[in-house]
Amino acid sequence: MAYLSTSDLRADAIVITAPGGPEVLRWTEGLPLAEPAPDEVLIDVAFAGVNRHDCNQRRRGPTPAHSDVPGLEVSGTVRWAGARAEGLCVGDSVCALIDGGGYATPVVAQSALTFAVPAGLDLQAAAALPEALFTVWHNFFGVAALGPDETVLIHGGTSGVGSLAIQLLRCLGHRVAVTCGTDAKAAEARALGAEAAFNYRTQDWAQAAIDWTQGRGVDVVLDMAGAAHSARNVQVLARRGRLVHLSPGDGADFVAPLRPILAKELRITGSLLRPLPLAEKALLAERLRAVVLPLVAAGRVRPWVSEVFGLAQAARAHTHLESGQAMGKLVLAAMAP
Amino acid sequence: MAYLSTSDLRADAIVITAPGGPEVLRWTEGLPLAEPAPDEVLIDVAFAGVNRHDCNQRRRGPTPAHSDVPGLEVSGTVRWAGARAEGLCVGDSVCALIDGGGYATPVVAQSALTFAVPAGLDLQAAAALPEALFTVWHNFFGVAALGPDETVLIHGGTSGVGSLAIQLLRCLGHRVAVTCGTDAKAAEARALGAEAAFNYRTQDWAQAAIDWTQGRGVDVVLDMAGAAHSARNVQVLARRGRLVHLSPGDGADFVAPLRPILAKELRITGSLLRPLPLAEKALLAERLRAVVLPLVAAGRVRPWVSEVFGLAQAARAHTHLESGQAMGKLVLAAMAP
Ligand SMILES: NC(=O)c1ccc[n+]([C@@H]2O[C@H](COP(=O)([O-])OP(=O)(O)OC[C@H]3O[C@@H](n4cnc5c(N)ncnc54)[C@H](OP(=O)(O)O)[C@@H]3O)[C@@H](O)[C@H]2O)c1
Ligand SMILES: NC(=O)c1ccc[n+]([C@@H]2O[C@H](COP(=O)([O-])OP(=O)(O)OC[C@H]3O[C@@H](n4cnc5c(N)ncnc54)[C@H](OP(=O)(O)O)[C@@H]3O)[C@@H](O)[C@H]2O)c1
Repeated sequence: MAYLSTSDLRADAIVITAPGGPEVLRWTEGLPLAEPAPDEVLIDVAFAGVNRHDCNQRRRGPTPAHSDVPGLEVSGTVRWAGARAEGLCVGDSVCALIDGGGYATPVVAQSALTFAVPAGLDLQAAAALPEALFTVWHNFFGVAALGPDETVLIHGGTSGVGSLAIQLLRCLGHRVAVTCGTDAKAAEARALGAEAAFNYRTQDWAQAAIDWTQGRGVDVVLDMAGAAHSARNVQVLARRGRLVHLSPGDGADFVAPLRPILAKELRITGSLLRPLPLAEKALLAERLRAVVLPLVAAGRVRPWVSEVFGLAQAARAHTHLESGQAMGKLVLAAMAP
Repeated sequence: MAYLSTSDLRADAIVITAPGGPEVLRWTEGLPLAEPAPDEVLIDVAFAGVNRHDCNQRRRGPTPAHSDVPGLEVSGTVRWAGARAEGLCVGDSVCALIDGGGYATPVVAQSALTFAVPAGLDLQAAAALPEALFTVWHNFFGVAALGPDETVLIHGGTSGVGSLAIQLLRCLGHRVAVTCGTDAKAAEARALGAEAAFNYRTQDWAQAAIDWTQGRGVDVVLDMAGAAHSARNVQVLARRGRLVHLSPGDGADFVAPLRPILAKELRITGSLLRPLPLAEKALLAERLRAVVLPLVAAGRVRPWVSEVFGLAQAARAHTHLESGQAMGKLVLAAMAP
């Protein structure tokens, strides 16, 4: 479709109405959408991925800087493609990383951050792919500059990010260990390909991780728990190891002794995907297209969707995610399932 | 001289006799030296550089792992050169980075870590060169991977390391700011080429450093004060900035909020030169020969020797260094000055 009518530019969406619990999410119809630019596409959303970020955003409440509609990733069908949306046509099945606004349909996405759904993947799984894929690639291969023979420890092995990271890194030849909060999660992480999975509530995971590397230490630790493990993360790292944080957690300070940081030449670092400039996200997308999507199409890396909720019932998905019981990814179906 | 006699393998040295103050340093004659290897040289020491490390080692006292003779750098004349000591001949004026044992004469040094004294430099200044040069290069260009247009903040602008770093980085085109503990030190740092020098006792140096970069933040901070400035170091760094620690200080933990570390994708890191493997030090030495020694020979980078003591009076040098009054480098003259 070459032209968009005003009726195309109305979306049904979940809106954050106030700072608070899942109850502040409200289903709202006919929200006006800004006209997409020539390098954008308009997607009829089939599924939207749910991320911990959406819950944090909801708790903070509406802000002037961002859309009040949460959601960082969607899958669906291209309804309209801008003239500079290279390689994307009306009717294509796609998934996209978006800068908020994903709990809605339709949704505007940057063409550079939109992928054709890899062969063999359904739209439901495709919605669970973008955020974790960009996050895993950026942090392991950008921020941490993971080398070919290096070992990895991931805290939160069954999180959305963790469950994808295990598969991708294993498949690229890395040894991966994880920590989890329950034995059941540890078993799932092993099933996904983790060579070792430690229950951090019942085990001395730091000593176990050191033993797992025959005393050498781990090359890269990915942490999504904030500062809870700071000193032990420093302890388990090998010489020139990197500790990459994905979350400031509850805001507690990072506290660790300097001596091992110097003696092992460690790097304590972290990143936030959402505020990365579009140009950097587009470079990540190119890399993902070239290296990772073929692995997805080959069935070697698969987003693990554990539960599906209706888009209008997003609050239930948030409640489930925040219970700490959820594993893998939750997705929202735009057409009630 | 092709063969070494037993009398060649006796050294006069300053020995750490116990953990303690400068009084535990004792002048000792005729200490046996291990026979140098084919890739080593024997140097008749003219001057030995004094480093903060020597004072720390002295306070810890003798250890099984290291020589009880402090000293990480010397200058002098080659008395004997091993068959694989490439490019070094008996009689050459040299300076060398050594793994302890420098407060002595003669001294055994690795040929790979021994430099011909650059043109225009006397032996006194040459003794003050190796430790600072290796430290500055390793940390700025190895650990921090300083990029061409990046700005630098150095804590301890008039330290041995700081005073050399200011000159070298300015001469490579970087803007350099420093902090110092007194206005007199700040003035000296400016005279060495620092564009800005903040007195951290009387000024809000963090705000001043941010203003100095027009709000952008500093790309690399070099810290030798341990954890004293942790949170403010994080605050002054620009996006993707690096905080490099040279010293664990008094052992206090590094404490800083995680959010800016993630939001700016910072790297908190550090290093210790002495335990680096010889092969890595040799690679650093090659780089220094190619890039930095020509700048020294051209007079653009000069070690700043502020005071000279007799080798037998090393205790007085330690007292002066530990008073916090010293600036630039202190050196010990093997022939009483
Ligand atoms: N920096 C970035 O760009 C970026 C991008 C994506 C994600 N993230 C962050 O990375 C983490 C994982 O994201 P995700 O969407 O994959 O999250 P998720 O699926 O909700 O997983 C978070 C994991 O943390 C543990 N957890 C349990 N209760 C929790 C609670 N109340 N609060 C926080 N964590 C809890 C759980 O593991 P256990 O029971 O095993 O402890 C859970 O598997 C989140 O912190 C998210 O904000 C950051
Ligand atoms: N990691 C490594 O490989 C490596 C290599 C070389 C040096 N270093 C470290 O880097 C730092 C500088 O070395 P350096 O030999 O150049 O030292 P230095 O000349 O003694 O300078 C240290 C600076 O720290 C400040 N200071 C004052 N009183 C002090 C005290 N009691 N203890 C510690 N610092 C004090 C002084 O500056 P203000 O008065 O301006 O505060 C002084 O300029 C030292 O901490 C040293 O251990 C580390």
